[in-house]
Amino acid sequence: MIQFQCDYNEGAHPQILQRLLETNMEQTVGYGEDDFCAEAKKLIRQACENENVDVHFLVGGTQTNTTVIAHTLRPYQGVISAITGHINVHETGAIEATGHKVLAIDSADGKLTAQQIEDAVLSHLHEDGPEHMVQPGMVYISFPTEVGTIYTLSELQAISTVCRRYNLPLFVDGARMGYGLCSPQSDITLPMLAQLADVFYIGGTKVGALFGEALVIVNESLKCDFRYSIKRHGGMLAKGRLLGIQFATLFTDGLYMQIAQHAITQAMRIKQALQAQGIPFLIDSPTNQQFPIFSNTQLERLSQKYLFSIWQKVDAHHTAVRICTSWATKPENVDQLLKDIAG
Amino acid sequence: MIQFQCDYNEGAHPQILQRLLETNMEQTVGYGEDDFCAEAKKLIRQACENENVDVHFLVGGTQTNTTVIAHTLRPYQGVISAITGHINVHETGAIEATGHKVLAIDSADGKLTAQQIEDAVLSHLHEDGPEHMVQPGMVYISFPTEVGTIYTLSELQAISTVCRRYNLPLFVDGARMGYGLCSPQSDITLPMLAQLADVFYIGGTKVGALFGEALVIVNESLKCDFRYSIKRHGGMLAKGRLLGIQFATLFTDGLYMQIAQHAITQAMRIKQALQAQGIPFLIDSPTNQQFPIFSNTQLERLSQKYLFSIWQKVDAHHTAVRICTSWATKPENVDQLLKDIAG
Amino acid sequence: MIQFQCDYNEGAHPQILQRLLETNMEQTVGYGEDDFCAEAKKLIRQACENENVDVHFLVGGTQTNTTVIAHTLRPYQGVISAITGHINVHETGAIEATGHKVLAIDSADGKLTAQQIEDAVLSHLHEDGPEHMVQPGMVYISFPTEVGTIYTLSELQAISTVCRRYNLPLFVDGARMGYGLCSPQSDITLPMLAQLADVFYIGGTKVGALFGEALVIVNESLKCDFRYSIKRHGGMLAKGRLLGIQFATLFTDGLYMQIAQHAITQAMRIKQALQAQGIPFLIDSPTNQQFPIFSNTQLERLSQKYLFSIWQKVDAHHTAVRICTSWATKPENVDQLLKDIAG
Amino acid sequence: MIQFQCDYNEGAHPQILQRLLETNMEQTVGYGEDDFCAEAKKLIRQACENENVDVHFLVGGTQTNTTVIAHTLRPYQGVISAITGHINVHETGAIEATGHKVLAIDSADGKLTAQQIEDAVLSHLHEDGPEHMVQPGMVYISFPTEVGTIYTLSELQAISTVCRRYNLPLFVDGARMGYGLCSPQSDITLPMLAQLADVFYIGGTKVGALFGEALVIVNESLKCDFRYSIKRHGGMLAKGRLLGIQFATLFTDGLYMQIAQHAITQAMRIKQALQAQGIPFLIDSPTNQQFPIFSNTQLERLSQKYLFSIWQKVDAHHTAVRICTSWATKPENVDQLLKDIAG
Repeated sequence: MIQFQCDYNEGAHPQILQRLLETNMEQTVGYGEDDFCAEAKKLIRQACENENVDVHFLVGGTQTNTTVIAHTLRPYQGVISAITGHINVHETGAIEATGHKVLAIDSADGKLTAQQIEDAVLSHLHEDGPEHMVQPGMVYISFPTEVGTIYTLSELQAISTVCRRYNLPLFVDGARMGYGLCSPQSDITLPMLAQLADVFYIGGTKVGALFGEALVIVNESLKCDFRYSIKRHGGMLAKGRLLGIQFATLFTDGLYMQIAQHAITQAMRIKQALQAQGIPFLIDSPTNQQFPIFSNTQLERLSQKYLFSIWQKVDAHHTAVRICTSWATKPENVDQLLKDIAG
Repeated sequence: MIQFQCDYNEGAHPQILQRLLETNMEQTVGYGEDDFCAEAKKLIRQACENENVDVHFLVGGTQTNTTVIAHTLRPYQGVISAITGHINVHETGAIEATGHKVLAIDSADGKLTAQQIEDAVLSHLHEDGPEHMVQPGMVYISFPTEVGTIYTLSELQAISTVCRRYNLPLFVDGARMGYGLCSPQSDITLPMLAQLADVFYIGGTKVGALFGEALVIVNESLKCDFRYSIKRHGGMLAKGRLLGIQFATLFTDGLYMQIAQHAITQAMRIKQALQAQGIPFLIDSPTNQQFPIFSNTQLERLSQKYLFSIWQKVDAHHTAVRICTSWATKPENVDQLLKDIAG
Repeated sequence: MIQFQCDYNEGAHPQILQRLLETNMEQTVGYGEDDFCAEAKKLIRQACENENVDVHFLVGGTQTNTTVIAHTLRPYQGVISAITGHINVHETGAIEATGHKVLAIDSADGKLTAQQIEDAVLSHLHEDGPEHMVQPGMVYISFPTEVGTIYTLSELQAISTVCRRYNLPLFVDGARMGYGLCSPQSDITLPMLAQLADVFYIGGTKVGALFGEALVIVNESLKCDFRYSIKRHGGMLAKGRLLGIQFATLFTDGLYMQIAQHAITQAMRIKQALQAQGIPFLIDSPTNQQFPIFSNTQLERLSQKYLFSIWQKVDAHHTAVRICTSWATKPENVDQLLKDIAG
Repeated sequence: MIQFQCDYNEGAHPQILQRLLETNMEQTVGYGEDDFCAEAKKLIRQACENENVDVHFLVGGTQTNTTVIAHTLRPYQGVISAITGHINVHETGAIEATGHKVLAIDSADGKLTAQQIEDAVLSHLHEDGPEHMVQPGMVYISFPTEVGTIYTLSELQAISTVCRRYNLPLFVDGARMGYGLCSPQSDITLPMLAQLADVFYIGGTKVGALFGEALVIVNESLKCDFRYSIKRHGGMLAKGRLLGIQFATLFTDGLYMQIAQHAITQAMRIKQALQAQGIPFLIDSPTNQQFPIFSNTQLERLSQKYLFSIWQKVDAHHTAVRICTSWATKPENVDQLLKDIAG
């Protein structure tokens, strides 16, 4: 079976493994205070064109989301999120486990609008008794979203403006950051995020690393004592060097963007092949996740050879699936898929 | 500087890296449901001589402790621990973050006795109003302890008996399990733990792995839905295979015990050299952590070449330090240290 | 100003104050273990026609909801509720503060259907990876609902059946229980609740008491250690007798139902007067809360004399308000309101 | 049986019941925003000689402690307390339920010293890795303590100074505040507390009220959004007026101090009678709780007529008990007890 069901089917980019091998017996101090982490932080600050951001490395996405949100909110505050947000659906209540409500807002395409955020804030501020409701305390968005869509620069600017007006830190979940930045439709860059967001992360797990997310804290007020929060949430890796080595490799000579671009190229090939066959999509995604709606006959046929993610039943005869590419997707596997789609 | 301050200064055992390299581009499903994990689980069940235990892999120790304790306790229950227990001191309140009190009991050597546990239970059961106090709900011990000591089989049997009498699941933190099992003074084995404990873990981070702990659940009532708890605490690694590959390697051909034995051999060499110089110890440890009390002059001299962990000031002129060996300790570094201790 | 904005504008029913006065200097033990509480529990068991239920008294509704839900759920479970449920909207995240997600389901009339509950359960049980989502662990409904509607017996039976099929304890929030039971449209009784629900409470705060809710636990598995949960959530009143005295009074000679009936009678008078004027309603409520939609002109006129709760803007020219009656509503105030509505 | 086992055996001071009766049918808004609460707040500000403090009313002590501590601390912080502190022993883990560790410090007499607090802070600040331990975030003391002792002004000043040096808000639990202030040995007043503490409460439950604690927030940074925290912890009483009426009564014409003085007078009579018989004390208390050590024979004899709290077995033949007086203690009951002690 050729696996397209997610973007973490393989290990790590070979350069990362190579670097782990070379440095394996060097001795370092623990918990992310080693020189490899220092180097990786420097490289990420450079990529963000911002010397003042704090950078921390965590192991996984749910852990990062939980740690950031619990660190940012006051106890009685909640986090605004699209109803499709990863924190609202697929983290087994990890956010609620820290005592905070996810204030979920309807969304057809995985995105929030500035207007929706403003409406949500105002609906929680009626003059008498706002204290009977959770206070909106921050905004969570994903770039790209869980359904592959991306914000434009002007959408992101509008959201950032509303967030600052209401003093809501803006947190961008970038589990698939590279695949968003490299989308042919994207006009967003890391330096822009380092201006418009208060805190965001650059996903490694899905973009070339064995594991790991690089968290970038822009807002001064969120920096203090962040390492306490990492430790409290079980996210402080003893051999922190492993994260430093991986991100230093990814941010040397543009490797991160280069391998993300590969995934996008392969995804666009698949998308065009599907379109060429007139196969409809659940959502129009410009990134590495594609959501075609197959007839059950088509799906049955393709499933003999390929593993997809079953996304949702559309009707009795049609099913939307998720097809993912990644840094590791082999072009020859895509070639084959293209033939089978055509066939 | 030669580093003896902890047992996670290096990467992983070379066989582990080798195996990661070989399997890197194989495609697997995520979240620990791959064949590597299945293989590793099988090997660990065999090592425990118990086909009925559940095995899960988590990334780090604090995460494992938190997940097990939160999964086991009812909301109003607490966990009995030695006051020196890792969960009581060095986890930034991760246990309390899940709503549970650590019921800390005095201990001079890092160990609890069966009698102390029984006393603690009885002191929380006075006839009227027990509900005004936290209810003891489980017992946490470390093997070896945070100060290098180990339980004997008869001590562990007595503890297990008390725990079962009062319906308190017994949880053994084995972050340094290998170094306990290989101690010349140990009469404990994994199959015994799988009989006497309700849940325990076999540490990988400090014994040859890049990271990872193998959790063994013996008690039937703790098995249900455990994967929900892992996910909720941010501990479900996307590329779970990495844990499977590491533990499968460690539990093939006795590698785990063999590399743990190496650390013990080196630690005993250091211990004897210190004893030969009449240097006293804060505590008499038969495992890979040694706690000599140096005069400040001695410490200053050695600190020019070696990195130790400063443990505590003993008096104005003496300081206890921690010297650790591990699977990765180079005998030639120990040779040198021995000379410098003698000198 | 005559206040109709809520059902807790006054103190307590005079018989309660009288009884507090008479018993004031009697000495009792604390924390609800006194004879007054014992008497009240016996009376409530009789009213429920069930000698096996456990009865506890708590001070307020949010506290009761939080304590029951945190006591019932496993850490990774959530509570299914209508999106309009009090726990989802007006408790400042008290449920999430205990680590649990409210699984909110759309509802136009404040009610859930058995089908919605079954759908919610099934949508969380897809074969691979259910552990990435919160597990539905119980169902919360209100009787009457936050918008005044009530379940019929057959609706409640259907819900109870689904709940038992999926092993979901059914919790009924009865903050306004009396006003539901006395509704002319109600075919529900306390004994039925004690058969169909697993746990429910009979509200005192809004039905004659100074404060207090009587919690009835039917399901055996929820009874154990409940007093620990009360204390842990700060709900164990030192002078528990106050709750015993109040509920003993309310459940002597049918006082509870009698004073609830008074509120319903007054509410129906108001409802009919509004209908007579052709004033539309946001929702058709058969209980003590009425939700007329006034033109802004009407509202302005009435607001000079009466205090209502502003519920929601319906359009630029119309506003829905909440008018409440209670055990304490004076018929002469209603007379006046009727005249002003007509006028 | 005559009850001396605690200080909440009776209802409320008659003037409070009288005032509840008189105001019973007045209509007020809910949740503590009524005129009675406004009046009570004004009176308490006057008693504190500080117009800038915020005053809130909560129902009980555990609730107040939990709400204040959870509102004050950052997630990774803990609260320093004497090991005997109510929050550490008798609140069923309510503090831990909000995610915070109680940093318990040994104490023989229920009190903390400034030096102990400083030592505790310093022990958590070792240069590398403070983030592996809970960060001390505030200090909790009781006035009087759980064993009846009180701080002198100079002790309190020293504690306050250390707290401000390390930026630790000082919280004083005043569940028995009146009995501390009226002790013949006390040189503390409410205005002093309003200068030296950051937040404290004046207990009503044990000093004349049916229930209720008046929380005084001095520190500006703790004031913001406090009502959200009250609601989140289930502490916002619907008929908040009940708290306003009670505290307005207690703080009119010095009633609070006057009835507290009565308890002290009776306690000192008992203390002297015990001393006259050469009966030793577990602790030397100058307040309303006395802790004599009776021989088992003495205890058996007295227990036929009086209810005491069994405090602890001192040895096989002696038991320490707690004898409490309160605002409600009848002098004739004390007369009788005195005779029986003598006899």
